Amino acid sequence: MLGKATRESRAEPLDDETLTRVDAWWRAANYLSVGQIYLLDNPLLREPLKAEHIKPRLLGHWGTSPGQNFLYAHLNRAIIERELDMIYIAGPGHGGPSLVSASWLEGTYSEIYSGVGDDEDGMRALFRQFSYPGGIPSHVAPETPGSIHEGGELGYALSHAYGAAFDNPGLTVAAVIGDGEAETGPLATSWHSNKFLHPVTDGTVLPILHLNGYKIANPTVLARIPRSELEALMIGYGHTPYWFEGGFDGEDPMAVHQRFAALLDEVLDHIDTIRRDAHESGDPGRPAWPVIVFKTPKGWTGPREIDGQPIEDTFRSHQVPMADVRGNERYTGLLESWMRSYRPEELFNDDDGRLRAEVARLNPHGGRRMSANPHANGGTLTRDLVVPDFRSHAVDVPTPGASVAEPTRVLGGWLAAIMRANPTNFRIFGPDETASNRLNATVDVAGKTWLAETLPDDDALSPTGRVMEMLSEHQCQGWLEGYLLTGRHGVFNCYEAFVHIIDAMFNQHAKWLKVTRDIPWRVPIPSLNYLLSSHVWRQDHNGFTHQDPGFIDHVVNKKADVIRVYLPPDANTLLSTYDHCLRSRDYVNVVVSGKQPGPQWLTMDEAIAHCSRGIGIWEWASTDGGDGEPDVVLACAGDVPTVETLAAVDLLRQHLPELRVRVVNVVDLMRLQDEHEHPHGLPNAEFDALFTPDKPVVFAYHGYPWLIHRLTYRRTNHRNIHVRGYKEEGTTTTPFDMVMLNELDRFHLVMDVIDRVPGLRARNAGLRQRMSDERLRARQYTREHGKDAPEISEWVWPAARELGVAVPAA
Amino acid sequence: MLGKATRESRAEPLDDETLTRVDAWWRAANYLSVGQIYLLDNPLLREPLKAEHIKPRLLGHWGTSPGQNFLYAHLNRAIIERELDMIYIAGPGHGGPSLVSASWLEGTYSEIYSGVGDDEDGMRALFRQFSYPGGIPSHVAPETPGSIHEGGELGYALSHAYGAAFDNPGLTVAAVIGDGEAETGPLATSWHSNKFLHPVTDGTVLPILHLNGYKIANPTVLARIPRSELEALMIGYGHTPYWFEGGFDGEDPMAVHQRFAALLDEVLDHIDTIRRDAHESGDPGRPAWPVIVFKTPKGWTGPREIDGQPIEDTFRSHQVPMADVRGNERYTGLLESWMRSYRPEELFNDDDGRLRAEVARLNPHGGRRMSANPHANGGTLTRDLVVPDFRSHAVDVPTPGASVAEPTRVLGGWLAAIMRANPTNFRIFGPDETASNRLNATVDVAGKTWLAETLPDDDALSPTGRVMEMLSEHQCQGWLEGYLLTGRHGVFNCYEAFVHIIDAMFNQHAKWLKVTRDIPWRVPIPSLNYLLSSHVWRQDHNGFTHQDPGFIDHVVNKKADVIRVYLPPDANTLLSTYDHCLRSRDYVNVVVSGKQPGPQWLTMDEAIAHCSRGIGIWEWASTDGGDGEPDVVLACAGDVPTVETLAAVDLLRQHLPELRVRVVNVVDLMRLQDEHEHPHGLPNAEFDALFTPDKPVVFAYHGYPWLIHRLTYRRTNHRNIHVRGYKEEGTTTTPFDMVMLNELDRFHLVMDVIDRVPGLRARNAGLRQRMSDERLRARQYTREHGKDAPEISEWVWPAARELGVAVPAA
Ligand SMILES: Cc1ncc(C[n+]2csc(CCOP(=O)(O)OP(=O)(O)O)c2C)c(N)n1
Ligand SMILES: Cc1ncc(C[n+]2csc(CCOP(=O)(O)OP(=O)(O)O)c2C)c(N)n1
Ligand SMILES: [Mg+2]
Ligand SMILES: [Mg+2]
Repeated sequence: MLGKATRESRAEPLDDETLTRVDAWWRAANYLSVGQIYLLDNPLLREPLKAEHIKPRLLGHWGTSPGQNFLYAHLNRAIIERELDMIYIAGPGHGGPSLVSASWLEGTYSEIYSGVGDDEDGMRALFRQFSYPGGIPSHVAPETPGSIHEGGELGYALSHAYGAAFDNPGLTVAAVIGDGEAETGPLATSWHSNKFLHPVTDGTVLPILHLNGYKIANPTVLARIPRSELEALMIGYGHTPYWFEGGFDGEDPMAVHQRFAALLDEVLDHIDTIRRDAHESGDPGRPAWPVIVFKTPKGWTGPREIDGQPIEDTFRSHQVPMADVRGNERYTGLLESWMRSYRPEELFNDDDGRLRAEVARLNPHGGRRMSANPHANGGTLTRDLVVPDFRSHAVDVPTPGASVAEPTRVLGGWLAAIMRANPTNFRIFGPDETASNRLNATVDVAGKTWLAETLPDDDALSPTGRVMEMLSEHQCQGWLEGYLLTGRHGVFNCYEAFVHIIDAMFNQHAKWLKVTRDIPWRVPIPSLNYLLSSHVWRQDHNGFTHQDPGFIDHVVNKKADVIRVYLPPDANTLLSTYDHCLRSRDYVNVVVSGKQPGPQWLTMDEAIAHCSRGIGIWEWASTDGGDGEPDVVLACAGDVPTVETLAAVDLLRQHLPELRVRVVNVVDLMRLQDEHEHPHGLPNAEFDALFTPDKPVVFAYHGYPWLIHRLTYRRTNHRNIHVRGYKEEGTTTTPFDMVMLNELDRFHLVMDVIDRVPGLRARNAGLRQRMSDERLRARQYTREHGKDAPEISEWVWPAARELGVAVPAA
Repeated sequence: MLGKATRESRAEPLDDETLTRVDAWWRAANYLSVGQIYLLDNPLLREPLKAEHIKPRLLGHWGTSPGQNFLYAHLNRAIIERELDMIYIAGPGHGGPSLVSASWLEGTYSEIYSGVGDDEDGMRALFRQFSYPGGIPSHVAPETPGSIHEGGELGYALSHAYGAAFDNPGLTVAAVIGDGEAETGPLATSWHSNKFLHPVTDGTVLPILHLNGYKIANPTVLARIPRSELEALMIGYGHTPYWFEGGFDGEDPMAVHQRFAALLDEVLDHIDTIRRDAHESGDPGRPAWPVIVFKTPKGWTGPREIDGQPIEDTFRSHQVPMADVRGNERYTGLLESWMRSYRPEELFNDDDGRLRAEVARLNPHGGRRMSANPHANGGTLTRDLVVPDFRSHAVDVPTPGASVAEPTRVLGGWLAAIMRANPTNFRIFGPDETASNRLNATVDVAGKTWLAETLPDDDALSPTGRVMEMLSEHQCQGWLEGYLLTGRHGVFNCYEAFVHIIDAMFNQHAKWLKVTRDIPWRVPIPSLNYLLSSHVWRQDHNGFTHQDPGFIDHVVNKKADVIRVYLPPDANTLLSTYDHCLRSRDYVNVVVSGKQPGPQWLTMDEAIAHCSRGIGIWEWASTDGGDGEPDVVLACAGDVPTVETLAAVDLLRQHLPELRVRVVNVVDLMRLQDEHEHPHGLPNAEFDALFTPDKPVVFAYHGYPWLIHRLTYRRTNHRNIHVRGYKEEGTTTTPFDMVMLNELDRFHLVMDVIDRVPGLRARNAGLRQRMSDERLRARQYTREHGKDAPEISEWVWPAARELGVAVPAA
């Protein structure tokens, strides 16, 4: 059964001319790859290679390059013959030399970078700049034309490929996966993406497992299991494996080309059949898409051995074979004959060094060159979202605290409207938590994507669903990144604690965005939008493992130009915030919002004004008489801290009616930094006006308290800022017990005020003690009744209380 | 072929008595699971269930529990019959009710927690405490006897299981994997762990895929692919799948028990055969270990449907079927009949409510109970490492800067000695970077673990290797955690940037340690030791994607009791630091150290003194005359910043010989915090003595600069602390260009001194400009020559220079 599923073809589909051309193109790409790694000068070897032609520091990766060059050449033949619209993803992105060579051969490089022409001088510049100070990175970086995938951190090739293919029915994404990369967790699960791809409305992903046997210093697992096992694995992942093996034991490359071309034709025919059948039958089924297992030697065509040590087809070819070429004449000679083995004189014009016309005929035209395909510069294809007015989803707030809503549910209603208005370029991603995060309305639009089996009792699964759920934060992130990088829009909703699973992926995406800012030809892409819910303060079903607000801390380490963090305190501010996020470009927007019913504070107009300021005094909550000078500032950021702050203000009004309290609410966390640190930073004068230069500030913050210090340490009044937040205390308990455990509760905030405002402590020892007693009483209540005391959970803001508003018991 | 590999058995191995007992035990565990989720009182249903018996907040997860209870009961039968030494890992750890029930049934719970007896009162307490304020978490938390795996964050069940099995030849680890969990990346790759397990010298891992069909709100991928595909997947992962399906369509549980018992016997026989064959033949081979695919309904034995909606065997059984049981009499009735369906009167004594003796006979004895197995409280089995004297690995440092060494290579020599001295309880883990990080000596001891195929040219692979490399940071972390939690020792070496991949896993482990601190019966375990090398400043082959020093920032958010961060500036301090780490317990130690050749500063005696202080003045580098008052403090933390700082001091000595400079080096980053924030925190008086209360401090730091502010914002002199560090600027370039890009270079430090020390600026505009010119010149040199200027790369500290020491060109 396995045997039958794996097909191997033996025809000879290439005519002599094409065969010669494919081979020449491959040799050219190999030549240029080696040249980039080693040479400063003498690019066409017009004179014997000498020390001064060699780079002093040899940095880069040879091993993966020849295999990738081979694939690229063959894909080019197919693109031309079949008029394919294809992009290429280099999982082992350390094979930078390969992709840079390809784009130079295709002419794209010289079109984009005028300093690197398509002639001999250009080749010299191309060689010199690689991994060279002031030059280009060693990886398939944002600087590399045709790339949406840097590959520096391995594991995301397939997720990115699928993300690119969703809603791009005309596109084929060739995804080369390193056999080392295949050992990573994210890659290992991303094979299952094929259960989420529609054969008519989505594009094609062609995974090519680059089975070159080795990673840095070891063989790979997949290369050292029997072929039958690897085939079973691929079948188990839902693919039809096509096995290819070539280039070993000095096999004639011409034979290898013929065999691979035949196999590729068969694979592409198979893909055509799948797509056509699905189209004609109207039934997407769940196709067993082809995967190519491409077994070739690592460092193929490179030195067989050096100093008695085997190099080709071993891990030793991973980076740079022969370390000190400049200082070792024998190595210089070896390098020269290695490069001459590609017969450059057959590849490049004698006079100007340009790629010979007959070889260049393997380059597809214009945007069909993989290095120039517009999908790989997604911003060029981006259409603005059609954004229905979020105001029509506003929660009615007659007076602050007078209505109760679940913010994410309200947001979900509007996101659903957006989804309807943008049926082919907006998706929502989540690891099985979209319903739990109460975005159900988005599921109602077109269901959740699912092409695997279904049962009658299933809920809202659909092959054309637009909410994508798989229990893998890596997949959600990777899919979304691929979707954004090819110019579409989306949202990743996730439990706040578990978004740390993709910390490293966020890093890479933020770095990508940072670099693209300085690359004029890269057109801005839609922002990466997070919605973090089920946050630290409301982990009712779970507990300590689910409590971690540190993603914000992680995010703010990245370049200020690129990152934004929002903590809307209620539903209307959440709507207004998200409206902003969905219209933005090239940012990472992190929005944290609870899903539980909570009091609503601002009317939509107030919310819009508050969000555009990003920070502001809530005059209706303050008692400093508008422009008066306060005795204390109570600041808050985050929905739960806002409730506790306002409840503390309520207590202060009752017990210390004389005290002038100012309430400042922060939606846009980056306002806290100064304008030199972050584009959103508040000028010092404005900060001082809000927080005063010298009054105590009691700051109730959603996350780890020290972040507020890190953001404000340069501010005039920093020494008076006293922050409460999550300090890593928690378990499965009631919401109020959680804030008490971390001393963020209303009673503690009142105690903080008493402790900080000069003169209060001595006169209010009694009140302070009563607050402490209230804490004990509240805790005791939870122990006896298993829930929060009604005076806590049913607390409403005074103005609403006067209207007789009651909060439903939790 | 697939068909043959999958075996299904039909014999009836259970005699009537055992069958009855297994079923009774299962029913008891189910009863207790439901009771924990719902009941406050009336545990044995001695009176009709009433509202006040029900918890006001129903929090927990039912769906996974009955399947896990079933497995636990059957494993108990096998443990007794076969005298197995077994632990149980609950991948879906949200099934807390299941594991808590099991340990209560086994008596362990009451032995450990005197407040929860083994009688009716105890059962009442057991029910009440679950997911209740002041009670226990809803998950298989550290509080749960028998657990080394909380399972709150899904994905690590198998890695933990393998970690526990390594070097524990007598142990069997039953690892239950959620079919939702199986979609995560870490889990998807962890199946390949079987290529790293030795059938004689390691224990057994028995993976059980809990194919209950659903996750939170969706079906699972593995449940919705054809059986043939799932079997191929398991074969592809290198396993022999055993398929079990039962409990559907009201199948009689007795039949299900018989069939499963037969299957389990077959599986355990197969395991015996594998182990015996390997032992007798002396050839480990690479066994195709059994995996059980356990297909049963989610929420099995629970309500079939409620209000017309199907519950059993749907995703709706995931958490708590029937929300408001307290407020809804019909639901109360439903709950009562559900609980009575387990026939509690047959399970618990009429009088005292204890488990009936005939049922209790399914409990193994003492430490063979999975809930009491000492391996699951690993500290009880920990043997101190035999630690050869690190002093004998010291680098000779005749005068500061006079020798050059690669710190991690030196450390590797000593780690190799430790490995030799502790051949069965110390391992090193890394994602294919151990050689790259220059710990090669550890590989020489016994090779790298590898049971897959080998080839003649392979380097140091061995089935009994003790360095474990797979290209998955998740696997390395998970294996090591499992190894530590069962009481052994280890080190995880990783590229600094990519350790972010396991940010979330680190979180969970740190949380686990924090909680165990307050659990008296949990004996401390060896610390989790990181060695982060190939760090941000030396990413020569790679570049921007490989530059991220933020793991430190991430780590310091966790409880101060648990985390330690060290930045040894040279090889001797690295040795001394690691000696401390390897002897410690219950910490996470993060050590960052470069691998490149660099100047060595301290003799071993000095290094030991410096490391025990964790921070100190380097008098030999300072010019403030020992006890004199300095004009400026140059502080540094990290190897590269230390070099730049000392080079800046050299420049200052030449150009501003009058200036009194104090050099402070920080090894233990936590010394910067105050004593109330961290146990290592320096008292304010000591801090002020080192950093002065009022002089400018120019601080060269390895990582993101703001971390230093976050750690020191309470210090007297904080406003004068000026930090240089990595500010997210970088690419593939020379080492010195990297520090220049981030303004951490020697010239910039001198400029900072001029800018900060009162009075210098006006008088030294010329020097300042020269420094700026030097930066340009240094940059220009790299552009022209592709490497750093010799005066930079060959710089040596004056004292060494006088001795005529020369540094080899890079
Ligand atoms: C997540 C991650 N861990 C570690 C590395 C370090 N690294 C760079 S290349 C490499 C080996 C890659 O092997 P493979 O995927 O087989 O690529 P190829 O053989 O084609 O070079 C490793 C481990 C990395 N880039 N990413
Ligand atoms: C990494 C991670 N992402 C998301 C969650 C949220 N979550 C909790 S339980 C669950 C479903 C688990 O399904 P499965 O593994 O099949 O367990 P079972 O069906 O046995 O409950 C999810 C997604 C989690 N715990 N961990
Ligand atoms: Mg490889
Ligand atoms: Mg499940």
